Amino acid sequence: MSDKTVGEYLFDCLFNEDITEIFGVPGDYNFPLLDILERNETIKFINCRNELNAGYAADGYSRIKGMGALITTFGVGELSAINAVAGSYSEQVAVIHIVGAPKTMLQNEHKLMHHTLLDGNYDVFRKIYESVTAYTAAITAENAEIEIPRAIEIAKNMKKPVYLVFALDIVEQITVPRNIPLPQNHSNKESLNEAVNKIKQMVDASQKPVLLSGALVARHNLQAQIIEIIEKMNMPVSTMMMGKGSIDESHKNYVGLYAGDLGNQDAKAIIESADLIFAIGTMWTDNNTGSFTANINPAVTIEIQPEFTKIGMAVYENILMADMLSEIAKIAYKKYDVLQDTSFPYDEIEVGMYENISAKYYYPKFQQFLKENDIVISDAGTFSPGLSLLRLPKGVQFIFQPAWGSIGYATPAALGAALAAKNRRILLFTGDGSFQFTVQAMSSIVQYGCKIIVFLLNNNFYTIEAYLNTPQESQYNNIPEWDYAGLLKAFKGDVFFKNVSTNKEFDEALEETEQHQNKKICFIEMNAEPLDAPYIVHKMHQMIEAHKKNNQP
Amino acid sequence: MSDKTVGEYLFDCLFNEDITEIFGVPGDYNFPLLDILERNETIKFINCRNELNAGYAADGYSRIKGMGALITTFGVGELSAINAVAGSYSEQVAVIHIVGAPKTMLQNEHKLMHHTLLDGNYDVFRKIYESVTAYTAAITAENAEIEIPRAIEIAKNMKKPVYLVFALDIVEQITVPRNIPLPQNHSNKESLNEAVNKIKQMVDASQKPVLLSGALVARHNLQAQIIEIIEKMNMPVSTMMMGKGSIDESHKNYVGLYAGDLGNQDAKAIIESADLIFAIGTMWTDNNTGSFTANINPAVTIEIQPEFTKIGMAVYENILMADMLSEIAKIAYKKYDVLQDTSFPYDEIEVGMYENISAKYYYPKFQQFLKENDIVISDAGTFSPGLSLLRLPKGVQFIFQPAWGSIGYATPAALGAALAAKNRRILLFTGDGSFQFTVQAMSSIVQYGCKIIVFLLNNNFYTIEAYLNTPQESQYNNIPEWDYAGLLKAFKGDVFFKNVSTNKEFDEALEETEQHQNKKICFIEMNAEPLDAPYIVHKMHQMIEAHKKNNQP
Repeated sequence: MSDKTVGEYLFDCLFNEDITEIFGVPGDYNFPLLDILERNETIKFINCRNELNAGYAADGYSRIKGMGALITTFGVGELSAINAVAGSYSEQVAVIHIVGAPKTMLQNEHKLMHHTLLDGNYDVFRKIYESVTAYTAAITAENAEIEIPRAIEIAKNMKKPVYLVFALDIVEQITVPRNIPLPQNHSNKESLNEAVNKIKQMVDASQKPVLLSGALVARHNLQAQIIEIIEKMNMPVSTMMMGKGSIDESHKNYVGLYAGDLGNQDAKAIIESADLIFAIGTMWTDNNTGSFTANINPAVTIEIQPEFTKIGMAVYENILMADMLSEIAKIAYKKYDVLQDTSFPYDEIEVGMYENISAKYYYPKFQQFLKENDIVISDAGTFSPGLSLLRLPKGVQFIFQPAWGSIGYATPAALGAALAAKNRRILLFTGDGSFQFTVQAMSSIVQYGCKIIVFLLNNNFYTIEAYLNTPQESQYNNIPEWDYAGLLKAFKGDVFFKNVSTNKEFDEALEETEQHQNKKICFIEMNAEPLDAPYIVHKMHQMIEAHKKNNQP
Repeated sequence: MSDKTVGEYLFDCLFNEDITEIFGVPGDYNFPLLDILERNETIKFINCRNELNAGYAADGYSRIKGMGALITTFGVGELSAINAVAGSYSEQVAVIHIVGAPKTMLQNEHKLMHHTLLDGNYDVFRKIYESVTAYTAAITAENAEIEIPRAIEIAKNMKKPVYLVFALDIVEQITVPRNIPLPQNHSNKESLNEAVNKIKQMVDASQKPVLLSGALVARHNLQAQIIEIIEKMNMPVSTMMMGKGSIDESHKNYVGLYAGDLGNQDAKAIIESADLIFAIGTMWTDNNTGSFTANINPAVTIEIQPEFTKIGMAVYENILMADMLSEIAKIAYKKYDVLQDTSFPYDEIEVGMYENISAKYYYPKFQQFLKENDIVISDAGTFSPGLSLLRLPKGVQFIFQPAWGSIGYATPAALGAALAAKNRRILLFTGDGSFQFTVQAMSSIVQYGCKIIVFLLNNNFYTIEAYLNTPQESQYNNIPEWDYAGLLKAFKGDVFFKNVSTNKEFDEALEETEQHQNKKICFIEMNAEPLDAPYIVHKMHQMIEAHKKNNQP
């Protein structure tokens, strides 16, 4: 690549990664970037209603396409997006954050420009971003062809956000040609061989193996290898919360969500009595482990992470997850005999259809409503834990934030996912509290013609918060009542809108949604009781109360 | 203070600073703080629709009452607010940012909790906040009675935000009593005497002195001293953008806004030909100086800042602004003879009332509409520079961000100001682009019964951006059309709403607003042309074009 401006070079690199949409907000320090982007025919600028929304949308986009990008302006813009970018870091999502900055000369002279802290420091925001990204660089014409590919490579390998800042005048300069090969990631063969031999011995000795599929399986796009392994060994497979959607849950070997005391109890029994556990790309967080009630025997656990494998207490470094999975597929000669029967919490409906709408009814109905290859996006609140117990059809991707848990994430993430997968069905599950945080994103969903299906659980209450704390009557959990149908009209949306209060109305709304979903946005407002919540949330509350009694942390 | 929990102690300290409202968003790590606040009868929790809005509201509140506070949760919450807090830093506004964090034991064990980066690091967000606050501390029962008063004192003296983080379990512990006196800020007498003697000589020799009143005059509440000085000397007085509202602009000595080539040209002539310039609490930023076209002779300038005075090139340290102003008032024996006549740009209306609404008409009308003691809040966009040329009635406070310039600031700031000054008239000036950024704040304004007056300049366009860049036709400056009347209905607002397209309709709307303003929100949607802008914005554009031709930075 040569004779290109820095801006053109940047967008060419991003297009090479299959980025065809970039989210962002214009601001006076990023005009040259946006002017070049406006002339670019391969990448479209998605003009968001604020930077936090742009950041969440880029994250949602990346979870579908493998990489996302956002453009903000200096100071005000980039700081508005930082919660979203930190979320991408916590949840391991590759996002390229591009920032437009004041002219080089003004920076060098420490001029007191707007959008700064008025201290002449032009490096302060990049330094802040060092804490929440895997890499940062200030781009010049001299380093563009080194730093831009390097940052993209790091984002891709590490599944983390990176940050690139461009002074206004740099963007239109011609890049200095470079030809520096990027470092290649290889497994260390000796480390790999030794680990594989050890695993072989463990497989030989095992009678009851099990596989736990984690979030990083989906991030590294290794779902097919997991299926190959479990089929070869006829091994039960489970996921933790963050791994939701990393495995085909319609598969006969799927035993349900593992989340200690909070997940599927059949899955818990199988996993905790296994004599060999393949834990692939899993993270041992509070939400993944049912508030640390997961009880896995480390001595029988083989933990396969993106760049290392841990067997019992021994860590084998420099082993790529993909290489290790290929090797395990080869040694997976041994068939486990009989699969235990497991039950799933939403397979049966226990309440009548004339009752007020409630979790006992709508979760089983959601499970029935889902189709192959749907994209499910859930906000924090009761939906996140509730939906994590769904048994998903084949190919369904599940986008939520069990680690970062930033409310308001899901609506903009749905915008991102819808633009990343224009021909797939997008189902957004959110609560009134979450929805209000980032409601502008709904205007963008209208503007960009994304025909998503929205389930809004509206009960004027932060329900999850009441369950996570003792005083359930707290005033601060109240949420103002909005007229959501009116709101969508104010955004000029062509929407099929339905307000439902009973299970029967909900059924009808689902049926009508099937008729309208290809033509327009479908928006189902579910008027549940303030304390309506799925079983798992009641259980979380009991656990918290028990801890309080025992004065545990 | 003793036998108080850390949380009770915190809120008592804040109430001592006249904080009667705290803005924020509940989250599971700040429940104990909010539970205590809910029982507190002196301070009300203002439950915002997201953290950025809460941060902006706390800033607006502080600009009226001298100090504001916000409460967020760990990670997700605090990072969503950081743009607002950085704005308070840049604009020198005292805000106490209170963050609820996971339990001490979980932090000490580096557990992988939600709302973290999943790296076991519990200090990362406090460190990030070190860059945008004047002080940070992690509070314990042992240090609460030291750190909390210290942080508040720093915020008060420096007019900067500070950051305090409280682990969940700390909040309900009893504070350890402390009796450590806070360091007192005093002027160094020798430094003060020497500087005053030097100033006396300069006053003796001066024929044409002038005073420039800056932002820090208002922040330190020293407006009365400035008036005393200019009256004693019969000296012309001007402000720069950030100082807008720091001086009674109805005063006969007020000569208009000084912003180099962009401000009042009579003011420019007076200031740049003065033989003595008192520059009080001014900052030499791009927007204050008309993109550095201000041309002040440093040799004749006495710059009085909160903690130092600079005379010509000599800096006298450790002189408090209040002390220096008292001394100057004493030596201000010399009366300047005749005040030059100055003209103000909005004193006359040059267009007819049957024409389409335009800046030439509505700025003079705004000037007539304003009343003593109004609070004017303007968002970035064309309103900020346009309104800065208004001649304000006595006692009017002017809230905007000429330094930080974060669009979307004004609507939540109006919420904050309205709760800080419940009996004053609040006028919010915003554009469609800005308003959409933080539109949820309008729901809070409805919820908390704030009867503000809103002027929304709706032209589906980021007008200011088109003027700050050459290609005025850029697609990325387009803003989606919303039905604002419908939106306010969706928020359940009792609103007097008027959509105006001609100057005559605008006049009628102003008259009707006067009738409704005490009873309900008044919302005037002004449907201007996309490129409608005040004279100062046209001039900014010409300046940019000229710079481009000369290839200047």
